[in-house]
Amino acid sequence: MALKTYEQYLKSLRKMRPNIYKFDQPITDVTTDPATKCTVEGHAWTFKGAFDEKLKPLLTTKSHITGEEISRYLSIIMSAEDMYANSDMKRMMFHLTGTCTGGRCAGWCALNAMFPTTWEMDEANGTDYHKRLLTWLEKAQAEDITIAGAITDAKGDRTKSPSQQDDKDVYLHLKEKREDGIVVRGAKLMICGVAASNEIFVIPGSGYRENDADCAISFVIPRDIEGLTIVETRHPNDTRDEEEGFDNPVKEGGITQAFLFFEDVFIPNERVFMCGEHKYSMKAISYFIMPYRAAIGGCVAGQGDIKIGSSILTARTNGLNSKVFKDKLTQMHVNNETTYGLGIAAAARGKKHPSGAWLCDPLLSNVNKVHVATLPYDNSVLAQDIAGGIAETGCMPSYKDFKSKKYGHLIEKYMTAKHSGESRTRAARLVEWCTLGSGVPGCMHGGGSPDGAKLVIRSVADLESKVQMAKRLAGITEDMPEPT
Amino acid sequence: MALKTYEQYLKSLRKMRPNIYKFDQPITDVTTDPATKCTVEGHAWTFKGAFDEKLKPLLTTKSHITGEEISRYLSIIMSAEDMYANSDMKRMMFHLTGTCTGGRCAGWCALNAMFPTTWEMDEANGTDYHKRLLTWLEKAQAEDITIAGAITDAKGDRTKSPSQQDDKDVYLHLKEKREDGIVVRGAKLMICGVAASNEIFVIPGSGYRENDADCAISFVIPRDIEGLTIVETRHPNDTRDEEEGFDNPVKEGGITQAFLFFEDVFIPNERVFMCGEHKYSMKAISYFIMPYRAAIGGCVAGQGDIKIGSSILTARTNGLNSKVFKDKLTQMHVNNETTYGLGIAAAARGKKHPSGAWLCDPLLSNVNKVHVATLPYDNSVLAQDIAGGIAETGCMPSYKDFKSKKYGHLIEKYMTAKHSGESRTRAARLVEWCTLGSGVPGCMHGGGSPDGAKLVIRSVADLESKVQMAKRLAGITEDMPEPT
Amino acid sequence: MALKTYEQYLKSLRKMRPNIYKFDQPITDVTTDPATKCTVEGHAWTFKGAFDEKLKPLLTTKSHITGEEISRYLSIIMSAEDMYANSDMKRMMFHLTGTCTGGRCAGWCALNAMFPTTWEMDEANGTDYHKRLLTWLEKAQAEDITIAGAITDAKGDRTKSPSQQDDKDVYLHLKEKREDGIVVRGAKLMICGVAASNEIFVIPGSGYRENDADCAISFVIPRDIEGLTIVETRHPNDTRDEEEGFDNPVKEGGITQAFLFFEDVFIPNERVFMCGEHKYSMKAISYFIMPYRAAIGGCVAGQGDIKIGSSILTARTNGLNSKVFKDKLTQMHVNNETTYGLGIAAAARGKKHPSGAWLCDPLLSNVNKVHVATLPYDNSVLAQDIAGGIAETGCMPSYKDFKSKKYGHLIEKYMTAKHSGESRTRAARLVEWCTLGSGVPGCMHGGGSPDGAKLVIRSVADLESKVQMAKRLAGITEDMPEPT
Amino acid sequence: MALKTYEQYLKSLRKMRPNIYKFDQPITDVTTDPATKCTVEGHAWTFKGAFDEKLKPLLTTKSHITGEEISRYLSIIMSAEDMYANSDMKRMMFHLTGTCTGGRCAGWCALNAMFPTTWEMDEANGTDYHKRLLTWLEKAQAEDITIAGAITDAKGDRTKSPSQQDDKDVYLHLKEKREDGIVVRGAKLMICGVAASNEIFVIPGSGYRENDADCAISFVIPRDIEGLTIVETRHPNDTRDEEEGFDNPVKEGGITQAFLFFEDVFIPNERVFMCGEHKYSMKAISYFIMPYRAAIGGCVAGQGDIKIGSSILTARTNGLNSKVFKDKLTQMHVNNETTYGLGIAAAARGKKHPSGAWLCDPLLSNVNKVHVATLPYDNSVLAQDIAGGIAETGCMPSYKDFKSKKYGHLIEKYMTAKHSGESRTRAARLVEWCTLGSGVPGCMHGGGSPDGAKLVIRSVADLESKVQMAKRLAGITEDMPEPT
Repeated sequence: MALKTYEQYLKSLRKMRPNIYKFDQPITDVTTDPATKCTVEGHAWTFKGAFDEKLKPLLTTKSHITGEEISRYLSIIMSAEDMYANSDMKRMMFHLTGTCTGGRCAGWCALNAMFPTTWEMDEANGTDYHKRLLTWLEKAQAEDITIAGAITDAKGDRTKSPSQQDDKDVYLHLKEKREDGIVVRGAKLMICGVAASNEIFVIPGSGYRENDADCAISFVIPRDIEGLTIVETRHPNDTRDEEEGFDNPVKEGGITQAFLFFEDVFIPNERVFMCGEHKYSMKAISYFIMPYRAAIGGCVAGQGDIKIGSSILTARTNGLNSKVFKDKLTQMHVNNETTYGLGIAAAARGKKHPSGAWLCDPLLSNVNKVHVATLPYDNSVLAQDIAGGIAETGCMPSYKDFKSKKYGHLIEKYMTAKHSGESRTRAARLVEWCTLGSGVPGCMHGGGSPDGAKLVIRSVADLESKVQMAKRLAGITEDMPEPT
Repeated sequence: MALKTYEQYLKSLRKMRPNIYKFDQPITDVTTDPATKCTVEGHAWTFKGAFDEKLKPLLTTKSHITGEEISRYLSIIMSAEDMYANSDMKRMMFHLTGTCTGGRCAGWCALNAMFPTTWEMDEANGTDYHKRLLTWLEKAQAEDITIAGAITDAKGDRTKSPSQQDDKDVYLHLKEKREDGIVVRGAKLMICGVAASNEIFVIPGSGYRENDADCAISFVIPRDIEGLTIVETRHPNDTRDEEEGFDNPVKEGGITQAFLFFEDVFIPNERVFMCGEHKYSMKAISYFIMPYRAAIGGCVAGQGDIKIGSSILTARTNGLNSKVFKDKLTQMHVNNETTYGLGIAAAARGKKHPSGAWLCDPLLSNVNKVHVATLPYDNSVLAQDIAGGIAETGCMPSYKDFKSKKYGHLIEKYMTAKHSGESRTRAARLVEWCTLGSGVPGCMHGGGSPDGAKLVIRSVADLESKVQMAKRLAGITEDMPEPT
Repeated sequence: MALKTYEQYLKSLRKMRPNIYKFDQPITDVTTDPATKCTVEGHAWTFKGAFDEKLKPLLTTKSHITGEEISRYLSIIMSAEDMYANSDMKRMMFHLTGTCTGGRCAGWCALNAMFPTTWEMDEANGTDYHKRLLTWLEKAQAEDITIAGAITDAKGDRTKSPSQQDDKDVYLHLKEKREDGIVVRGAKLMICGVAASNEIFVIPGSGYRENDADCAISFVIPRDIEGLTIVETRHPNDTRDEEEGFDNPVKEGGITQAFLFFEDVFIPNERVFMCGEHKYSMKAISYFIMPYRAAIGGCVAGQGDIKIGSSILTARTNGLNSKVFKDKLTQMHVNNETTYGLGIAAAARGKKHPSGAWLCDPLLSNVNKVHVATLPYDNSVLAQDIAGGIAETGCMPSYKDFKSKKYGHLIEKYMTAKHSGESRTRAARLVEWCTLGSGVPGCMHGGGSPDGAKLVIRSVADLESKVQMAKRLAGITEDMPEPT
Repeated sequence: MALKTYEQYLKSLRKMRPNIYKFDQPITDVTTDPATKCTVEGHAWTFKGAFDEKLKPLLTTKSHITGEEISRYLSIIMSAEDMYANSDMKRMMFHLTGTCTGGRCAGWCALNAMFPTTWEMDEANGTDYHKRLLTWLEKAQAEDITIAGAITDAKGDRTKSPSQQDDKDVYLHLKEKREDGIVVRGAKLMICGVAASNEIFVIPGSGYRENDADCAISFVIPRDIEGLTIVETRHPNDTRDEEEGFDNPVKEGGITQAFLFFEDVFIPNERVFMCGEHKYSMKAISYFIMPYRAAIGGCVAGQGDIKIGSSILTARTNGLNSKVFKDKLTQMHVNNETTYGLGIAAAARGKKHPSGAWLCDPLLSNVNKVHVATLPYDNSVLAQDIAGGIAETGCMPSYKDFKSKKYGHLIEKYMTAKHSGESRTRAARLVEWCTLGSGVPGCMHGGGSPDGAKLVIRSVADLESKVQMAKRLAGITEDMPEPT
């Protein structure tokens, strides 16, 4: 098998052990349960699209291992062009699903983070992590599996390191090292798209010092592995997923974020890619966030395109030409292309790692993250501004009321403007959905907080070189070090 | 009766005809139905507070008619100090309920808009609207009723005037004028707090020309009047209102916005305050928006205070001192005091109308509205930034999961940081609630859109005087009129 | 004498000792020297205006001491209305002169700061500072003198207190206390409008502890007192002041900031208002910055009006209607009214001091200062955006070239658009002047830096009350103090 | 000759006819006249740098015609990498000179605009413009000349086309077509770096229709050609150029913008690259602005680096560590890398023209221009915020006062803080210079106004595709065209 079909993908999900829960109930079939169906259908576009002539060039590529056609989400990023395709694919996925299909991209970033990290560990320590990774990857590509990525630990008191915590489990850690594998304990929180995935790729949640070396672990596991319990979290308007009708307008797109509880989970050695090499934990994080924070510019631009489209659609139902909103639209385009473009720039100014991986520029990637933490909000405000009061808080009667035999005709009558009441409602619901509803992705803190990005910016920005340039221009000869 | 108690208020609501619907079901008791209970409890604070020594000074005042102690929401605003109290009361109401109790304040503004408008009509035309209004008001004060305000029409195609619309009903209009009263037809949409009100005060939705004089109508009606059907709209996370537990954290505060369908409703003359006097329709609007757009600065500042408090509360559960976020907190305070302060300024620079009403400054009121349309969003972003990923989209397990016998202990364990998992969840849920959930008020378009406010700004700003100042300073003597 | 005429004012300046220097030359007559003439003419509008029926109501008021008509700049601010007049007068002064007449307003603020401060010191310590102040003030009002205000010390290393500095003189301090007066030593820097003043009112530059009590001094001196050397600093395009023609378009307005060197200056007791009472030094600062930071909102709004007028004037010379720039103009108006309005709000929400002084609200005053530090820049950008390339950097040929016999006709020919080349040049020069030239006032750091204002905001904002409101709403009962 | 030395460059400038004027005086030697010396020295860095091992890789490249080593400013941009080098070189030039060396880059852009334009004209019309261009270019490269670029016409009334103007000369136009060449008449205004150039490359100032075909002209001329009169315009603090000392701190960097008057100038055919082909005038503009608006992101980032360096330098003289300003510094870095990065992105997403030229992406280039019109101002505000009051308006005594025998020692004494008074003055003067002085480049309107860029954004953004995406997601089937 090279590329899975839509049906094969759904089938692969159905056959897993039901270890996912929501509302204190097990989810026995993620492809039909209202809590997970939308996200599964969203992720399914990566399979449907692979068989669509127009979408395929972005969704697939060649394996650098076998030369076979594979899903781009299972590829190693080896050039600036691979990264451009990353940004473009993510933007397209938002166009298709309206929101984040984070289950694939975090897993992909985790894989691409561990590719150079394992290479470096093996070079330095003579381990065989990189080979393990390639062996696993070749099979993953052949089976065209979907892989979520898990990074964020529970973290407990943020002012304490893992070993200082009252409850050590708040960081996922090595509990036992056996001959044939390892046993881990703890949790990973807010993990995206797990319900739509076959496997989960785990990397360290932070850079660790020697005291906390037990937390420097990376591995990949089947989603339904023994000992793993998954609880899906809530998201805005999540119970509308269970309702009929267009109040949740998008059926083939949706986000889930889950809490993963590891109660002494055993992972065989061939699936372990880091085990205590704490010096490389920050490397892994760093290799993760660079492509992630670059390409997320494409994500939010993609949703920004939908915000533009849906707000103008609503304006049209009001009879208004887009020229009325030209300054707002221009600003929305500027916002979109700023995050998209900075992601491209981070890729363009990247460099080759000896392992073959392409490393994005850390300064530009993190500058992008800072914009990603605010510009999508600005676009939401502008979309609500254009679309008007009904979209601002979605204050329209429910679908059930719309269909009421008693007064449904009145709602239709009074929602009608330039276009039918239903079209107007659908358009406004889409604005609501992506600015205040189920379609809102967690872009601010996803992949790390903006404050974290600012820390990186300060650390890589080389302030002193700029001080020296200024000193030369000002004709100052006195020695002027940083005051203490 | 002077001031109603909490119990008397609830009782007054219970005895009304059940003409409110949601999800295609009648709401038989607004005080207990999950769709309306929270907003009723929120509005109820205006009654509970009137008997609380600390809250009373803002919530009550003296009637200018009788000198009796009355609810401030039923008073005529006659001085700058009355307006300051308006801003302060609204800010305090947000502190108490976390969100908007718009059912009272739109009605109050409508009353205060028609006070000078009826005075002017009577002066010019010899009508007796002002006397009618005072007669009704004296009784309303004595009975301490709650009054919603209804302005926004359905409006149909926004590029057409009422008489140009295909369906004339899209603007509420006079259908028939009888000896003893009038019959009206049409709808008012997105009307706040109707379920918590005893009566509804209706004013024209716009300024009208002669052709559209039938839309220049104002009156006050019992909420359960014959011929009126009310459908409550959805709001973010509205079905959580039906759930047990803390996923909707605030029980005594909530917003409703309703669609009001008038199917040939008869209103007796003594409750009619405008009927075809189209020249005064823009006056009514203008007298409405000035105090509304001034005092709303207090509203959003009040919610901003809750955003500050809840985000810092969440940070504390993470073990983090507020100093970590000092720049963000300062910005949040600046945002809050900007809208609050500009409302105060609009009041301070107001002037006395011959009727006795205090008119806020139109330029400063509308400048405030422009800020109100964006600064609360900025505060939401900052609150989510401070509170972290769990608050950004509320991606925490549900209350039901929290209480699960199977894995609830794991959620508690991993949500625990500096404080208990429950406190942490509650704090983060409150951030979610007021930035992305049920607590989000419709401040951008409520009381008119920011683009409408900008139109007013341009019309009152007197650009030419500034051009002349510059011309004098530049020493230009040539005549330089505006190019055509 | 009650109110001085323009001629009397100039005469009073001319008769002083020439202790002011610029470019290593003494300024023998400040009313004619190009370095000081513009600022003198600007300040002179406060005298000319007092005899103009339209301007007089803002420029004059009644003395609370004698009931006589006096310059408002010599009055004690005793009500919110006095503060509104303060804001309005300053805005008007910018309309008349295009820029800051800071020589009067800093002196006025210093006087109004020491009025309640001396009252408090006398109450607590039995001193007679307040009486001294009133005695001096009565005479100052009768003679209608102009008073600059001096606050900012040289300060040396910012991380050290006065007593820790290598050179103690970097803070102005008491050198010797004599029977009949005091001797002071040090400097005050960046003092505005000294050349246009008869006297200088000195207050402490900061709040001081006991170790630094020698710096807690306040007094008023003739500008030409023995031992005082004044050096005027540069300002943008300052040598254009010496040129003929319209390259510096404004002749009756201009800013100067001077360095004041006190080399053992003797001040008689009756002119000393604080001498070592370090506990009151922060009070003096605080009473200074509240009205200053409130009313400066009117200042920058007034210049904002000129930026609006001059940019639209330039657009008109290009043949363009102001509608082309309507969004930019709206934003400029919003910016102007935001700082003006917040100043009004700080006044409206002020309170009475037992001395009779009106104290502005510290939170709103300082929030205003934060806006004053950025919004005027935004208006400059917008003005340059509207006015186009010639205004952005003033890249037009000089007045001398304009008048060249060789090619002046070509400049006129090619500068001509809808209006004459000269009008177009004058309009664009005015935009340049107030956005990048001599008219740019030092509003960001004048009266203290925005970071200082932010410190005050944090100290008065009562964060804990907001945390408690949120805690109640979230239903949290656990004790949650600020983590350490 | 391949690459000119510094001395050869100066010599080449000295031997030209003195047709440049300022202050109604001819500039007989641009290398020594204070009005032009700084800009010449700034441009000279492009020659000095070509012989510096570290700077050379960016400043030189290979000729695609001869393969010889040439100045990059004379090269044809044929790949994304060439464009990256363009951005990097411009950023470096700002590091070296503190400001714009626009005389070279506008000429370079003009050349690169006419390269594909002439190719297209020749393809379509059988003309030989492209060959003429290559012939001239080969010689220009061999002689290593400096070329300014001239675009902006006088334009008269902005609401009228060239043929509608009262005075036809306000657009540079063809007056006569002779056998051997053409005669042109009119003016080009605000032309950068002419005084530092050997030749001037002229392109159309706009896209023209048939009626205005006479304005569709392009050619290259010696700067001192007969019939051309050049008047240098003013710039902020321009007379400080004539002063001794550090009040104008930068000696090897400076901007000039000139008015060029063409009084019947004859240009031989071999130097003419467009003559009436109006359909290609917009193409030329478009090919000019794309690389210009991409690479200018590097320019303003380069100056932003100096703003960072000089403000921190000033803070150090005050004894303050950069951590005090960390949020401001982060924002400055974000601003810098945003414009730099978007320029890189526009290059990365460019495409190959059949002529061989590399065309930057128009959407990203113009989005960058929008940022370039505001972010440098934000950085100026931040730099002034960090550097304090002395830098805000440069209110420090003059160099002459600093050296005064009478009181210079007092200035030194009181300017001294953590470092010497002179170092502190120099640092603050540099902040002033690049935020409010001679170093401020005209980035907002240079290369076209931000409003022009917004027009391009709207025209290339493909709004309809976004509306269609949203329509599909919302499940709307009704036809919904743009309302008219």
